[in-house]
Amino acid sequence: MTQKFARESHTIMNELVLPNDTNTLNNLMGGRLLHWMDIAAAISAQKHCNRIVVTASVDNVSFRHPIKLGDVISIEAQVSRAFTTSVEVRLVVWAQNIPSGTRVKSNEAFYTFVAIDKQGEKVAVPQLVPETEEEQKLYNEALQRRELRLVLAGKLKPKDAKELQNLFKEVVKK
Amino acid sequence: MTQKFARESHTIMNELVLPNDTNTLNNLMGGRLLHWMDIAAAISAQKHCNRIVVTASVDNVSFRHPIKLGDVISIEAQVSRAFTTSVEVRLVVWAQNIPSGTRVKSNEAFYTFVAIDKQGEKVAVPQLVPETEEEQKLYNEALQRRELRLVLAGKLKPKDAKELQNLFKEVVKK
Amino acid sequence: MTQKFARESHTIMNELVLPNDTNTLNNLMGGRLLHWMDIAAAISAQKHCNRIVVTASVDNVSFRHPIKLGDVISIEAQVSRAFTTSVEVRLVVWAQNIPSGTRVKSNEAFYTFVAIDKQGEKVAVPQLVPETEEEQKLYNEALQRRELRLVLAGKLKPKDAKELQNLFKEVVKK
Amino acid sequence: MTQKFARESHTIMNELVLPNDTNTLNNLMGGRLLHWMDIAAAISAQKHCNRIVVTASVDNVSFRHPIKLGDVISIEAQVSRAFTTSVEVRLVVWAQNIPSGTRVKSNEAFYTFVAIDKQGEKVAVPQLVPETEEEQKLYNEALQRRELRLVLAGKLKPKDAKELQNLFKEVVKK
Amino acid sequence: MTQKFARESHTIMNELVLPNDTNTLNNLMGGRLLHWMDIAAAISAQKHCNRIVVTASVDNVSFRHPIKLGDVISIEAQVSRAFTTSVEVRLVVWAQNIPSGTRVKSNEAFYTFVAIDKQGEKVAVPQLVPETEEEQKLYNEALQRRELRLVLAGKLKPKDAKELQNLFKEVVKK
Amino acid sequence: MTQKFARESHTIMNELVLPNDTNTLNNLMGGRLLHWMDIAAAISAQKHCNRIVVTASVDNVSFRHPIKLGDVISIEAQVSRAFTTSVEVRLVVWAQNIPSGTRVKSNEAFYTFVAIDKQGEKVAVPQLVPETEEEQKLYNEALQRRELRLVLAGKLKPKDAKELQNLFKEVVKK
Repeated sequence: MTQKFARESHTIMNELVLPNDTNTLNNLMGGRLLHWMDIAAAISAQKHCNRIVVTASVDNVSFRHPIKLGDVISIEAQVSRAFTTSVEVRLVVWAQNIPSGTRVKSNEAFYTFVAIDKQGEKVAVPQLVPETEEEQKLYNEALQRRELRLVLAGKLKPKDAKELQNLFKEVVKK
Repeated sequence: MTQKFARESHTIMNELVLPNDTNTLNNLMGGRLLHWMDIAAAISAQKHCNRIVVTASVDNVSFRHPIKLGDVISIEAQVSRAFTTSVEVRLVVWAQNIPSGTRVKSNEAFYTFVAIDKQGEKVAVPQLVPETEEEQKLYNEALQRRELRLVLAGKLKPKDAKELQNLFKEVVKK
Repeated sequence: MTQKFARESHTIMNELVLPNDTNTLNNLMGGRLLHWMDIAAAISAQKHCNRIVVTASVDNVSFRHPIKLGDVISIEAQVSRAFTTSVEVRLVVWAQNIPSGTRVKSNEAFYTFVAIDKQGEKVAVPQLVPETEEEQKLYNEALQRRELRLVLAGKLKPKDAKELQNLFKEVVKK
Repeated sequence: MTQKFARESHTIMNELVLPNDTNTLNNLMGGRLLHWMDIAAAISAQKHCNRIVVTASVDNVSFRHPIKLGDVISIEAQVSRAFTTSVEVRLVVWAQNIPSGTRVKSNEAFYTFVAIDKQGEKVAVPQLVPETEEEQKLYNEALQRRELRLVLAGKLKPKDAKELQNLFKEVVKK
Repeated sequence: MTQKFARESHTIMNELVLPNDTNTLNNLMGGRLLHWMDIAAAISAQKHCNRIVVTASVDNVSFRHPIKLGDVISIEAQVSRAFTTSVEVRLVVWAQNIPSGTRVKSNEAFYTFVAIDKQGEKVAVPQLVPETEEEQKLYNEALQRRELRLVLAGKLKPKDAKELQNLFKEVVKK
Repeated sequence: MTQKFARESHTIMNELVLPNDTNTLNNLMGGRLLHWMDIAAAISAQKHCNRIVVTASVDNVSFRHPIKLGDVISIEAQVSRAFTTSVEVRLVVWAQNIPSGTRVKSNEAFYTFVAIDKQGEKVAVPQLVPETEEEQKLYNEALQRRELRLVLAGKLKPKDAKELQNLFKEVVKK
């Protein structure tokens, strides 16, 4: 099984917020941002897998600050963990108003993708090797996020979600 | 405080999957669907609030089946619960291949929106009155989803997430 | 020959009026609405025929009220009559300004579609069975609209347009 | 009252048929063509009126030939008659497959526009002076088309549509 | 080898400047105009070659005047010279504010295209026959522009650019 | 006068080639790439100037390799020199076919932008400080490119283009 470093999938995408991306208050619509994030994450997942990839899920995303018409959205994507035929990609989104020099973190999110061949069949992907401390942390916590994803999709029963149980056991004991 | 029925926010949106919405295997890209779902959910939220609304969060969404070029996406959106200045909207997405007569449930999801006035300030929204059994169930479970959202956004500590604790207490006890 | 009920082709499409859909006075451009109406009508025609369909004609459409940026366009489409290889679809278009709670009927229109197979050859379509009084009325008057369409397209001479002649005979007699 | 020649409003628009403009058989969708025709006609109407114009109606349009992906659509628009605050624009649409050198007339149509000022109020427009024989013919027949438009929009009773009555009197007599 | 007149490739394209084409000051973005110019020039090149064509280069383009939202861009394109498998197309771009009746020349530019067959191989194109004085001038100067293009692309050494040398010899002598 | 380092304006933009960006051979159209390059360059220029910027010119761009549907375009932009109220931005464009792991340099180009205030008036920009050897080389050669731009735009006579004359004097002497 081949292996690849997390940084090999690092991807940066910049987008300018245009009128059609905004609502009547000139704020970026959340769905448009989710769309751009999907494209950035898919490019990152492709770099890791060297395969066509399809979106399997997006984790909970919250939108904290209004982003304005004319702002530049900067999306950083990097694979955080590879599973058998899928990868989890972590995204950090920044909104910059360049004329005024401001730059705020807008969102963090996790998208997962499945690698497929030209017939649409799932194929194995290279394993991910984290290097930095932050990459290691994201790698370790990926199992917990994966369990939550499976529980929420009804594919895993809460009683079999061992990672999540450990988290809540702590809480319940207190 | 005014009240509105869940059904008053019922919204149906149909979209045709066009070439630019698809990847090189002619499958609908996940991000495009998230974008359409955001628009459908925003229309539903607006109907309940009679206000401009902005996306506050999207819950975990998983994509189970590939959707093909030429399919018709049918999105049903309805407010499932109103909070002080925000609403939760439930979406059910169907993919139809009309010439062959197939229709499969593609996704279910929850988006939340905050109602704002023209200055961008949060404003109170009407309370939601569920009528059918399904509406009542979605209404009741909304608190649990809300706690999970707040925990995932780092705005609530797991130890204060009472609804989630009850869920896992059951599990832990076993 | 198979038969289908009018209601089986019922289709609802909602679209949000975005900046690129409007002119410099922030009013929806007529052509953009005609485009959305074509897509909604095509989905309805597909539902009746279970075939790929191509637009054959659009009847006279008039635009009565300006529709504003941020309004929600709601299009209802339903097959009003089936002929040998074509169907007539009736559309009713509503424009809603949801924050202010207004909703006005914007247009009514008729589009016709021809059903084709994958080689592009015309194929027979199921006959339409009207149920409600309104469906029956639309079904009956469809012949008259069809004659007018053929006369306007130069495919039928006014002297052979019997339905239209009856209409004007009444007038002429008076 | 100022006057302008028909040719002063002559407008040519060429558009390339791109993937998103086509259905799953790679044929141009009718609604997309209606949208382009509206833009070409609006430019022509603006040239005559030197005003912002809004679409008031589109007359019956029929689609005779399939137009393919990669074809070039060539739309010619020219004002055919001016009324008090509105103009009628005639469109001729050609579809060209340039590599193979074919060029077929795809459609003819009439769109009408109302001229408005910046407050959205109707304003008077220059009268049209036809010069060529064809311009004169289109000018003369415009009254008949206008009556049909008003009858179809429910704004004129068939018994008051004198131009149309004359047409059908001939027919009825025979 | 076949021959064609310059005027046979004459192409006019009109585009309306919509919100998404503009920056936050409501001025048309340069890149959007370069995109439209490429489409207009490609249509013109196709008309001359009766082949699929691909953009080979765009010469220096400068943007002199701001173009506003709601303006109509009018692009005139015509082949200025044909080489073995490529053509040079000259573009003149006008910006019109129709309600106020202004019309200014916005840009002039030269795009070159290579003609290819369905396998993507270069194919010979008809030679161009200039007729008017202006067409003759553009035809003659095309060699000089071609040398500059080759020098700038690193495909020709300045010492072999005879046409350019002649131009600068004059200058150096003085 | 403030100063900024070249690297402070470094900008990366990734775009996925979608169907509507391609011609009938599934190759990216040149105009679409010029459009993306303009957006990437404008973001880079904004970062240097902290101002709204408008495109002033694009230098000769040649397109060497066909770029295919599904490829990822990666554009790197960085300011190469600042003048009084304008900046020159250098772009390097890569085309990647990620599933097959190929990555080729597609284009290099220079765009220039003018910085303006909210009234559209030109404003002074910070001077650029090159650091690396490559940045220094691009900085030095910028004067020669600027002269060529002014000569081609008819704003400078060849006899006053000292930098260009020096280049050709060398050639002429030989």
